[in-house]
Amino acid sequence: MKDSESRSYSLREIARRFGGDIAGNPEFEVRRVATLENAGPDCIAFLANTRYLPQLKATRAGAVIVGKAARAATRVPRIVCANPYAYFARVSTLFNPAPGAQPGVHPTAVVAGSARVAVDAEIGPCAVIEGGAEIGAGCVIGAGCCIGEGVVIGAGTRLYANVSIYHGCVVGEHVILHAGVVIGSDGFGLAMEEGRWVKVPQVGCVVIGNDVEIGANTTVDRGALDDTVIEEGVKLDNQIQVGHNVRIGAHTAIAACTGIAGSAKIGRHCRIGGASGIAGHITIADGVEISTYTLITKSIDRPGTYTGAYAFEPHRDWLRNAAQLRHLAELARRVRALEKKSKQPKRSKP
Amino acid sequence: MKDSESRSYSLREIARRFGGDIAGNPEFEVRRVATLENAGPDCIAFLANTRYLPQLKATRAGAVIVGKAARAATRVPRIVCANPYAYFARVSTLFNPAPGAQPGVHPTAVVAGSARVAVDAEIGPCAVIEGGAEIGAGCVIGAGCCIGEGVVIGAGTRLYANVSIYHGCVVGEHVILHAGVVIGSDGFGLAMEEGRWVKVPQVGCVVIGNDVEIGANTTVDRGALDDTVIEEGVKLDNQIQVGHNVRIGAHTAIAACTGIAGSAKIGRHCRIGGASGIAGHITIADGVEISTYTLITKSIDRPGTYTGAYAFEPHRDWLRNAAQLRHLAELARRVRALEKKSKQPKRSKP
Amino acid sequence: MKDSESRSYSLREIARRFGGDIAGNPEFEVRRVATLENAGPDCIAFLANTRYLPQLKATRAGAVIVGKAARAATRVPRIVCANPYAYFARVSTLFNPAPGAQPGVHPTAVVAGSARVAVDAEIGPCAVIEGGAEIGAGCVIGAGCCIGEGVVIGAGTRLYANVSIYHGCVVGEHVILHAGVVIGSDGFGLAMEEGRWVKVPQVGCVVIGNDVEIGANTTVDRGALDDTVIEEGVKLDNQIQVGHNVRIGAHTAIAACTGIAGSAKIGRHCRIGGASGIAGHITIADGVEISTYTLITKSIDRPGTYTGAYAFEPHRDWLRNAAQLRHLAELARRVRALEKKSKQPKRSKP
Repeated sequence: MKDSESRSYSLREIARRFGGDIAGNPEFEVRRVATLENAGPDCIAFLANTRYLPQLKATRAGAVIVGKAARAATRVPRIVCANPYAYFARVSTLFNPAPGAQPGVHPTAVVAGSARVAVDAEIGPCAVIEGGAEIGAGCVIGAGCCIGEGVVIGAGTRLYANVSIYHGCVVGEHVILHAGVVIGSDGFGLAMEEGRWVKVPQVGCVVIGNDVEIGANTTVDRGALDDTVIEEGVKLDNQIQVGHNVRIGAHTAIAACTGIAGSAKIGRHCRIGGASGIAGHITIADGVEISTYTLITKSIDRPGTYTGAYAFEPHRDWLRNAAQLRHLAELARRVRALEKKSKQPKRSKP
Repeated sequence: MKDSESRSYSLREIARRFGGDIAGNPEFEVRRVATLENAGPDCIAFLANTRYLPQLKATRAGAVIVGKAARAATRVPRIVCANPYAYFARVSTLFNPAPGAQPGVHPTAVVAGSARVAVDAEIGPCAVIEGGAEIGAGCVIGAGCCIGEGVVIGAGTRLYANVSIYHGCVVGEHVILHAGVVIGSDGFGLAMEEGRWVKVPQVGCVVIGNDVEIGANTTVDRGALDDTVIEEGVKLDNQIQVGHNVRIGAHTAIAACTGIAGSAKIGRHCRIGGASGIAGHITIADGVEISTYTLITKSIDRPGTYTGAYAFEPHRDWLRNAAQLRHLAELARRVRALEKKSKQPKRSKP
Repeated sequence: MKDSESRSYSLREIARRFGGDIAGNPEFEVRRVATLENAGPDCIAFLANTRYLPQLKATRAGAVIVGKAARAATRVPRIVCANPYAYFARVSTLFNPAPGAQPGVHPTAVVAGSARVAVDAEIGPCAVIEGGAEIGAGCVIGAGCCIGEGVVIGAGTRLYANVSIYHGCVVGEHVILHAGVVIGSDGFGLAMEEGRWVKVPQVGCVVIGNDVEIGANTTVDRGALDDTVIEEGVKLDNQIQVGHNVRIGAHTAIAACTGIAGSAKIGRHCRIGGASGIAGHITIADGVEISTYTLITKSIDRPGTYTGAYAFEPHRDWLRNAAQLRHLAELARRVRALEKKSKQPKRSKP
């Protein structure tokens, strides 16, 4: 699956496409991308973090992409640019383009008569497209996907295997949904009545903007009455849970295993660490960063980084320290008492 | 997908079905349900929390459902009742009834000869029903579902797309399983022997009671020897993990991303917050509430609310404060020493 | 689904296969395995933990497996051995052998012409095997599985329903993948450029060793450039997330809901509790144990048990204590001030 058979590009060709300065031989022909550590002589690698300077020194890569500060750190033919990691992303895409759709509906797919499928879309084996659904130009619907009634999927979107989209949801253009993703399942809407839960019908939908990517087995619930909205350019990692009526602002990235409770509003350009939690009905400003394993229980109205994880330690130490957590308020009270006492004149004691 | 084409009901008709007092015009015709915020003049909305009183004042809804305390808070035609949210759930269900089964087995479904499928059940495209399985009256088995050997599914149960149920499991009546749910996978039973894990066969099953709802991509493991049991009326949100031999008591609700380790017994009428954890082999009493992100490591024998989450703060503050966690036991010791010292007569020092 | 129809084995036959000493009647015929609590007179049960001695006293089991210390704790016919739980695992497997493959490709499966499927492999209904894939001898590919281009699956491996494996991944022999597992989805590789995320192509693969078991709905991302590797004998529970370029050492077991961030290296023979988190780019030594709900943020270079969970308490107490967390650094400063003050000679204050 590696790009061993793709064509080669000279550094000159690469720089013509993506910019940057060339240092060293511009005619060097690159055949593949690789890590500094495992690159061979036909590879281009990159340095995005000075932590890896030793690997730059030791690399067998034929060429590298570096930032301006590292221009002189190697003699390997190189492209010098402002943002080596983004540059590398573009070069890697040049060598590893996303495979295009192979137009046509597989004979084992089940497409309702009232569905509209673009002629150049690819519908995989055993995929199911229900009535009134629309599949845009150049889409790839993977094997075993189930697309509910009236779902609209924009052009150039790719669903990997076994994705489920419930009725009425809307997916933008150039979206990627990984295997096992579920879009539009019922939100957790329940009313308690005489000791039993009464289900609240979930009649909103999910609306996903353009250029969104959603990781494997992530779930996005439909809105209770209004819609759940994921704005353009949002990137969700694997196994994230998005509750009903959540809104995630454009270009926000969220790492794996995070849970977002119902009606939370997350701003644009946020970065949210893995296994974090966002409480329901709160609002998070644009540009907020949340650390891994952090539970956000209140609205955050200004950018910055927020953290709330318990730092690990050897179990024996943890046993002793964590036990004190249950006495913290008491400990604080005792310190106040000591302070008060220490301020009293000592001589008054006979 | 909204309910725009369903019939209308007057407030009088609604109150005749579900009770409550009408204030204002009883002939007002409702066509849809909506939030206070987004309702139009043909909608009925509801107020279940005084926090939203400003939205009640501003609503364009044609009618509202309110509690007794809010009877006079609006002039909009209204139904006054004891439990507005549950009332609203019933009204919303009136306008948005769950779609019924469309009887029949899709030609691409694979139903074993020894399976018994009720004549009015709906078996979706590419669904697989293995030998000896029984599908009850009025069931809907979604596209791509896989129902293992000997599985029994009660009447009126609905499985959305791509649900997998392993052999021998039993699902009650009027159950809802959302897309990607897995029921009856092997529990995590392993014995260590000379540096290698030996698999312990998981030969119990999963038994799910009536009126249970299970959210998307939730997993419920089969028992090791005895069964894993989910009692009637339990509501599980998305991406919950239920270990082998767990028992969840009737009418307990558990929010998303929670993990329940093997052999835990959870009582009836509990409410468990999202991303919480329940340790194995413990027992939780009826009526317990557990907060979001809380790990329960010991049995709880009385009702109440239990919490154990780390409160977030700006990262810089967290760095300073969390570092002290590792010195808490020492800090407590130092405070004790100060207290002891402060009680000694000072004059004894020459 | 219980083993009621399998043949019986005498204690003598069992001990001949698996070793151990027999105390009591060696001709006792065992028909089933069971828990001490629910065993009937034709069952063999086991005692692996002295905590369950009362259940041993009360059991109706016809035979039991016990350790040497418990040899005299019962008069029931018994096998005495060094490791009763592992012994029980083997006996249970004798009574409950994994079902073998039923050779053949189901007529609704879709197997590419260039795929190679062993003649004795079983390919279930609606499974999809793409071009160039290889399915080894005796494999079982469950209903609805999607096996990507060029995937290689070793002999004796079993995939339950609705598993998705992306192109190019390699799965060893005697591996078990439970329903909903996703192998080889794209890692979360993104470069930020002018306020937008640029996707970094994920061109590595996933390589899974022999005798690995992976639980339901667990996801394993493909490597960015090099591969993600799960070594032989690793056991992963349900709903675990394994990021790109992670390496998990042989015979490590990880409980459910754990998240492992990109490029983390986990040693051999580790035991990792449920819902824990491993940060990216760190290394964990062989033989490390990590407690449930613990976030590991730094490399661990020696064996031992590490913990970092917040201990729960009644909500009212938690409110008071957790509030102090935000003042811990200040509290420590105040204690230092008190200590300093208490060391000053008091008499100097005239």
